[in-house]
Amino acid sequence: MKKTKHLIVQKFGGSSVANPERIKRVAQRVVDTKRAGSGVVVVVSALGDTTDELLQLASQVSQDPPERELDMLMSTGEQISVALLAMAITELGEKAVSFTGAQVGILTDGTHTKARIIAINTQRIRKALAANHIVIVAGFQGVNLNQDITTLGRGGSDLTAVALAKALVADACEIFTDVEGVYTADPRIVPDAKKLSHISYDEMLELASLGAQVMQARSIFVAKRFDVPIHVRSSFSMREGTMITKSVRAMEDIVVSGVTLRKDEAKVTVRDVPDKPGMAAQIFRELATKEVNVDMIVQNVSREGSTDLSFTVAKSDLPETLRVSRSISRRIGAGEVTTDEGVAKISIVGIGMRSHSGVAARMFEAMARERINIEMISTSEIKISCVIRRQHAESAVRLLHKAFGLGKGSKATKETA
Amino acid sequence: MKKTKHLIVQKFGGSSVANPERIKRVAQRVVDTKRAGSGVVVVVSALGDTTDELLQLASQVSQDPPERELDMLMSTGEQISVALLAMAITELGEKAVSFTGAQVGILTDGTHTKARIIAINTQRIRKALAANHIVIVAGFQGVNLNQDITTLGRGGSDLTAVALAKALVADACEIFTDVEGVYTADPRIVPDAKKLSHISYDEMLELASLGAQVMQARSIFVAKRFDVPIHVRSSFSMREGTMITKSVRAMEDIVVSGVTLRKDEAKVTVRDVPDKPGMAAQIFRELATKEVNVDMIVQNVSREGSTDLSFTVAKSDLPETLRVSRSISRRIGAGEVTTDEGVAKISIVGIGMRSHSGVAARMFEAMARERINIEMISTSEIKISCVIRRQHAESAVRLLHKAFGLGKGSKATKETA
Repeated sequence: MKKTKHLIVQKFGGSSVANPERIKRVAQRVVDTKRAGSGVVVVVSALGDTTDELLQLASQVSQDPPERELDMLMSTGEQISVALLAMAITELGEKAVSFTGAQVGILTDGTHTKARIIAINTQRIRKALAANHIVIVAGFQGVNLNQDITTLGRGGSDLTAVALAKALVADACEIFTDVEGVYTADPRIVPDAKKLSHISYDEMLELASLGAQVMQARSIFVAKRFDVPIHVRSSFSMREGTMITKSVRAMEDIVVSGVTLRKDEAKVTVRDVPDKPGMAAQIFRELATKEVNVDMIVQNVSREGSTDLSFTVAKSDLPETLRVSRSISRRIGAGEVTTDEGVAKISIVGIGMRSHSGVAARMFEAMARERINIEMISTSEIKISCVIRRQHAESAVRLLHKAFGLGKGSKATKETA
Repeated sequence: MKKTKHLIVQKFGGSSVANPERIKRVAQRVVDTKRAGSGVVVVVSALGDTTDELLQLASQVSQDPPERELDMLMSTGEQISVALLAMAITELGEKAVSFTGAQVGILTDGTHTKARIIAINTQRIRKALAANHIVIVAGFQGVNLNQDITTLGRGGSDLTAVALAKALVADACEIFTDVEGVYTADPRIVPDAKKLSHISYDEMLELASLGAQVMQARSIFVAKRFDVPIHVRSSFSMREGTMITKSVRAMEDIVVSGVTLRKDEAKVTVRDVPDKPGMAAQIFRELATKEVNVDMIVQNVSREGSTDLSFTVAKSDLPETLRVSRSISRRIGAGEVTTDEGVAKISIVGIGMRSHSGVAARMFEAMARERINIEMISTSEIKISCVIRRQHAESAVRLLHKAFGLGKGSKATKETA
């Protein structure tokens, strides 16, 4: 067989391999794919709660564990998964071989706990595939030039899968989750929400960072950069999920692809910030130093030499954020710092809004009709986000979903087969 | 500092690192050693029950897991331990770095689950020691030429420690256990039993294979071969334990060093084996193929062209042993195969018996006085073992301990300081 065989990279998350029963089910799915005629490379995360249990152990021996040792510890989670999956696949009568990140040469930089992949040496994987093995690779981990184990940070296993698909020039990269694909809105909030058959990288990037739990933004970014098509689908059904690709011709006339909601953020406002260069920079540089991730930032034009600066942060970061903001506010001569935890952020995302005017207006009008007050607005090329009162969050998702015709019966959206 | 610093290898078993509290205690002990002025290399086993839990997981996904994947799985246990210990040591203010077997180049052959160490590349360890780090190495594991993870089998962590002590030309190799050292007999059976300050490799080899649970025979064999002095001592006290060394001058006049007991074996007898060459070989080759470990073998001179052949095996191997023995007995025209689980094996061990006659006689007389019948006898240069009825086991240990003057008050033994 001279021609390169059809090759699929499949990634299964921690909940898909949470216990021996589920591992066996994943094994069966992988074996089915192999027997349908494909070479298969499988990427797995750690079993269910393993990661939390290991972190718990670490916290019991150290207040501030060295990051190199955290990676040494955490990487065992995926190593356990790959060994067990290889056993389960062998039990089904197919040849399987498991590898750590180090063994397949997933070379990263030296940034422990959030390393970046530099290169992948695919030689060992290709050899195993040529020997008709199903190849199982530990997700989330790599190795630096010193042979120290590194981990890739949150969503690292998705990244491993996408990077392997790119390096191996795979025909498909399938990300298995516990949902059927990417939806126009959270089906728990909007029963009418529809699964999208296709979505672009850019839209998915916005959806990921806006709270759709399907994939981490980072791996979508890499997929976009190297144009790796991703198929997000369910571990529990054989149905087609959602394809994430570069250009989605059929979607050009779809203005809005989905509505997302985040309720885990709080709003912080620094009053009367002097309207001088560098004021905002001081606040956000200091917050970055403290590793506080700031999400939306809104600053309006100044009135009488000063302005109010508002931003949102994760609620867990609120105490640190307040400490930092108050201290800087005093230093730069700004006013009171107020905080509001009763907020939610609602966003609409769509590649189509680039070329369609009036999208923002339609969004604001829909909310006004229902007397939902908008407290902050922030926009990007393919997204509009609004901060509103939390008690209106769910109803706002439903009304926007309807206003943009995203429901199953609507004409404004089209599913392509 | 041009001169090589004093270097100690310390090995802690699974019960010493069973939980975060104990890991912290081990960390303190290691740090104390470092602060007393030594370079320290620490070898650790997997936390308490980790190994059993991992094997349990494997058995739930596979009836017959591939050994390569078992090693991949099992090796995570030690990797967790080394990372946690490195964290705990860092917490105490010393620099520490953990390594897997692969990372420090513990090169083994390819025999998964019971690999042999071929070579150790000490470069990485020496570099870390030179940088004033406490070096923590995962016990029990290595890597073959393919970079596949291997494990060293039972007692593998002791072997890692001994091999590292040899490769690094360490000044001491300390094996920490939950007992104070090597005793003249099991203190639970003989309250008068005395801790030996010194013992030879050969005696320790006999004691290890005879059921003293302190160290596996294999690592003592390696220590003997490369003349690595071992200090067996308690994790829970600062007292000196037992030194295992090549020649123990002060012991030359000690005839017997200890009394050991095994009650986990059964006796098997094949009656009327034809007195022809190759009969015994057939039986034991077949048992070896089935991985049954045969311990004592006794065959007396033949009477009327046939002989009885008796041997002992672990009770867990008895069903398999009977199956094999009965099938071969029929094939070679031997008689009935009988079995007896009501036995115990009692042994006396001592380098001194090489040059002292009458030791066996003294042993048999002591037992005769108490009317304990001896059913089988087997001897080596430094050991005499007898199979007796199990109900006499403990009293036989006590009476032999006394007969050879091993008690604390006795003159016949000497402790050197």
